[in-house]
Amino acid sequence: MNIPHLASRVRFVLCEPAHPGNIGSAARAIKTMGFRDLRVVAPREPGYRTHEEAVAYATSSVDVLEASRCHDTLAEALEGVTFAWALTGYDREYGPPMTPMRPAAAKSTAWLADMEGGVAFVFGTERSGMTNEEVMLCQGCAAIAADPESPSLNLAQAVQIAAYEMHMALMAGEGHEGDLYDWQSRFEHEMPASVDAIEGFFRHWEEAMTVCGIHDPANPKNLMPMTRRLFGRSGLTQTEIDLLRGICAAVIRPKRDRIGGKKAG
Amino acid sequence: MNIPHLASRVRFVLCEPAHPGNIGSAARAIKTMGFRDLRVVAPREPGYRTHEEAVAYATSSVDVLEASRCHDTLAEALEGVTFAWALTGYDREYGPPMTPMRPAAAKSTAWLADMEGGVAFVFGTERSGMTNEEVMLCQGCAAIAADPESPSLNLAQAVQIAAYEMHMALMAGEGHEGDLYDWQSRFEHEMPASVDAIEGFFRHWEEAMTVCGIHDPANPKNLMPMTRRLFGRSGLTQTEIDLLRGICAAVIRPKRDRIGGKKAG
Repeated sequence: MNIPHLASRVRFVLCEPAHPGNIGSAARAIKTMGFRDLRVVAPREPGYRTHEEAVAYATSSVDVLEASRCHDTLAEALEGVTFAWALTGYDREYGPPMTPMRPAAAKSTAWLADMEGGVAFVFGTERSGMTNEEVMLCQGCAAIAADPESPSLNLAQAVQIAAYEMHMALMAGEGHEGDLYDWQSRFEHEMPASVDAIEGFFRHWEEAMTVCGIHDPANPKNLMPMTRRLFGRSGLTQTEIDLLRGICAAVIRPKRDRIGGKKAG
Repeated sequence: MNIPHLASRVRFVLCEPAHPGNIGSAARAIKTMGFRDLRVVAPREPGYRTHEEAVAYATSSVDVLEASRCHDTLAEALEGVTFAWALTGYDREYGPPMTPMRPAAAKSTAWLADMEGGVAFVFGTERSGMTNEEVMLCQGCAAIAADPESPSLNLAQAVQIAAYEMHMALMAGEGHEGDLYDWQSRFEHEMPASVDAIEGFFRHWEEAMTVCGIHDPANPKNLMPMTRRLFGRSGLTQTEIDLLRGICAAVIRPKRDRIGGKKAG
């Protein structure tokens, strides 16, 4: 699977958007998730591509805004699409069956990998959502789970969630889900400390804790097991071991001085 | 599990938002996902609650906008929070470890079910995101997967995705009580320390390191960022905080005696 190639076959369609700012926001929303194909059906403002608000909300995604295609009808906007999802907040009596957004994205990813043609996510006008006629042109309804008491998402935010779920599904489809965020990746430039180094630190720490009077090796209690648990959980790099041993040395030093009488004179 | 009850302990914090419209959009974003607790830290427009743009973007969520609390500092906005997620697009050299948003939401759900206190999602200012200082007040970094070539989401849209993932996780959590996440097993069912407790420890630690001569607050170098990174990675329980503060006190005590001349006589 090639994500950019599959992503190029995903289309986002806005039906009769009233506010150019929402079109600009939608352009930004899809571009942040790796998509480029934005279609606009019968917008209230035909010159939306250069409208001040649209440009302001698109920010660095103004290229997607400018390249968006404008159509007279939803049917035209869906040309070349194999499966269109109607984004609807509620089930329609006569519409296609409803699927939550997450499995809708997973299904779309499987289809893109297996068949030609594109997948589209279709969004209705701001105030009233998709008309029944628009829904009928789609093959599935996709629903974004929301609080039933306040289910109405802003148009651009619904586009953002659909694009995000589709991006997540494409990444999962390629087995890349966790790649970018491996917990260890932050340490790839730093060596984890060796067991010897870590044990050397624990001996040094115990000495420092003994010198400063919080630990008695003859009656040890739980200081050392807790220290091991804490640092075991974080893992330690060699740089951190160096820092911690510097602290141990600093804690030990003046006390020895004092015991040795250098400061007491 | 009672979703509305758990949802009431989820907080969304906007640091220094410049545009009232984004605050209004964020209010709507969280309310659509069943959340109500919005905090705003040092907004550019202190009268944002009645600002025309904020009200326009909040639409029917103006109640959440009006009830939002405004704070001078992020630390104040995090009062009562047990675990704060910094929403950041990239890994910080000294920040806490990065977790993708989806597992971050799942972990948060498990924590909310098992412990008292709240979970917060913290968002930086529009142009530049979170400062390193803000990130350091958080216990984890949560990342929204985006296209690496265009990763910059609008503030309100990042809030929308975080709220959506948290809503999805709370819904999924209803059937997943036994689904243990690594943090829980690592803590052996102990409470993680609160942000207040952790910050109190860092102040005490800095004092101890200063007294023992390894740290100079006037010329701080990297001791404190490294300390935060190390303990941020492990997470800290209240028991561990108690132990570490005992160590700080022990390190400080004899040196003060010495400096005070008691031993020098």
